[in-house]
Amino acid sequence: MPELRKDPIVGRWVVIAPERAKRPDHRDESGFVEAQFDPFAEGHEHATPSEILAYRNPGSQPNGPGWRVRVVPNKFPALQVEGNLDKRGDGIYDMMNGIGAHEVIIECPHGETNMSRLSIDNIREVLWVYRDRLVDLKKDRRLVHALIFKNKGAQAGATLPHSHSQLIATSVVPISIWDEMTGALEFYNYRGRCIFDDMIQQELANGSRVVLDTPNFLAICPFASRFPFETWILPKQHSSHFENIPRGGIEELGSVMKTVLRKLDLALDDPPYNYVIHTAPFDAGELPHFLWHIEIFPRLTRVAGFEWGSGFYINAVPPEQAAAFLRDVAVDLP
Amino acid sequence: MPELRKDPIVGRWVVIAPERAKRPDHRDESGFVEAQFDPFAEGHEHATPSEILAYRNPGSQPNGPGWRVRVVPNKFPALQVEGNLDKRGDGIYDMMNGIGAHEVIIECPHGETNMSRLSIDNIREVLWVYRDRLVDLKKDRRLVHALIFKNKGAQAGATLPHSHSQLIATSVVPISIWDEMTGALEFYNYRGRCIFDDMIQQELANGSRVVLDTPNFLAICPFASRFPFETWILPKQHSSHFENIPRGGIEELGSVMKTVLRKLDLALDDPPYNYVIHTAPFDAGELPHFLWHIEIFPRLTRVAGFEWGSGFYINAVPPEQAAAFLRDVAVDLP
Repeated sequence: MPELRKDPIVGRWVVIAPERAKRPDHRDESGFVEAQFDPFAEGHEHATPSEILAYRNPGSQPNGPGWRVRVVPNKFPALQVEGNLDKRGDGIYDMMNGIGAHEVIIECPHGETNMSRLSIDNIREVLWVYRDRLVDLKKDRRLVHALIFKNKGAQAGATLPHSHSQLIATSVVPISIWDEMTGALEFYNYRGRCIFDDMIQQELANGSRVVLDTPNFLAICPFASRFPFETWILPKQHSSHFENIPRGGIEELGSVMKTVLRKLDLALDDPPYNYVIHTAPFDAGELPHFLWHIEIFPRLTRVAGFEWGSGFYINAVPPEQAAAFLRDVAVDLP
Repeated sequence: MPELRKDPIVGRWVVIAPERAKRPDHRDESGFVEAQFDPFAEGHEHATPSEILAYRNPGSQPNGPGWRVRVVPNKFPALQVEGNLDKRGDGIYDMMNGIGAHEVIIECPHGETNMSRLSIDNIREVLWVYRDRLVDLKKDRRLVHALIFKNKGAQAGATLPHSHSQLIATSVVPISIWDEMTGALEFYNYRGRCIFDDMIQQELANGSRVVLDTPNFLAICPFASRFPFETWILPKQHSSHFENIPRGGIEELGSVMKTVLRKLDLALDDPPYNYVIHTAPFDAGELPHFLWHIEIFPRLTRVAGFEWGSGFYINAVPPEQAAAFLRDVAVDLP
């Protein structure tokens, strides 16, 4: 059973998951795990655990071909679905059982490696799947938060090239979300406004860090970007929970995601990247001080060890330059 | 001029340093920057900026051969020494000039790549240099903190193989230090004790995560280790500032460092790693709630992109297993 442990000094939670050590680790030249075939491809459904959800064509059978987007449990999960939390302490230390969900969202049936080359409709369905999984997991009272993220490319931590994202639902709030919520609440208590909404106003007025501006979304390279070409996508209508996004929002976000990822691919020659959706905890109602958003980090630099130890980032590309470059990259959407 | 920018939501400072983009970036097969020769070797002193400090043999001249440990400015500094802070704001954003020191500590005159193979006396002199640089930089009232760190190996972010560490002194406190101080102060206010001292007591009583126990230092794999074989070295005598370490402390710490690094090298086959010294800000007096310490992170896994975005770490090696393994690795010191 994996274990959740809390750092007693800073309050960061860590999953100690010895089962993960069993993951295959023979990497091929490209850095991916060596595989005889693509376990995420249509027709290879037997190679994954049984599906949790799939958007299927009429007449197709679960765990067979005929799907467009498919969600399965991670074969080497960091957390375990069954069991009780069993919260406990030992002197200054706090821990609990590693209960949670660790799912893989397979974004397409064919062997595409790059989300930006999926059709807009395909990307929209991926976003709908994100929403559906959050709505479903929220019903489990043991869980308080879910992180949706993507590792694209071996250097970004992916073990398989087939385009996919992941979801980790936990019984605790990850510290990055907690820190954002705490900082945003402080601002709200002091100024009476949501800091994210203020940020959107200021970025629109300034313009220099704007990558894409659509009726309901804004993509920017943030003022204090940690990494070259770091890009955030924020909804203009205040909402703290991604899963409350309306149908029209998903429609528009699909083309925003496609455009932004395509711009990054064209500007940086298909870089490895990660993205994370930051959304408020399940057990919070709509929060006036927090805004869900997507953070995208191209993985261009190696200089990261020092940053891990200090939280102090050195970024050689001013976000204004990155945003100007990305604005100028032309993307033709069908 | 580099610029320090504050993330308005979480308060993290970032250095925007376009000058750093000029660093050579042609990597050879081993991942290091291609070089005709070793600029850190004795006899190549002209290849670095003029030295700030060197421990020299009698009769040798500055910027010539005859040194044992040598400190020079980073050739591509993230921060600039000359100038005023010029703190300013723009709406929700805060920024200031990127004033600070970025120094390289060249740990030995010969082409050794691995600190654990330096003599204990050599390592002691490196630690003395750390202390001397902190004592000196502390006099600059524009600076409030200095981070000493090492990137060992290309995968850990090093650009050159010659054994070296770095120092970045800043006009702001890095967020990781801030978070630790805040968490430790909360514990102190609540319990009336230093959480690090409590941790040392509990680790000694429990024993399962102890790597090395000497009269004045304790090396452990921490309870909530983020990375496999993460190891911390803590002084048993309470002290918040590394630069206040007594001569006897450095003597003992030299052999502790050598032993711990050698154990990691033998256990993990000379892994790339980072270490960071966490020490209290210059402008704080001795703090009863904070303890300086060294955090060492072997860089064994790639799965780090998601962690960047969430602060949520998944570690497949329980620290108890790592510590037992490291305890069992025999290291013969001369």
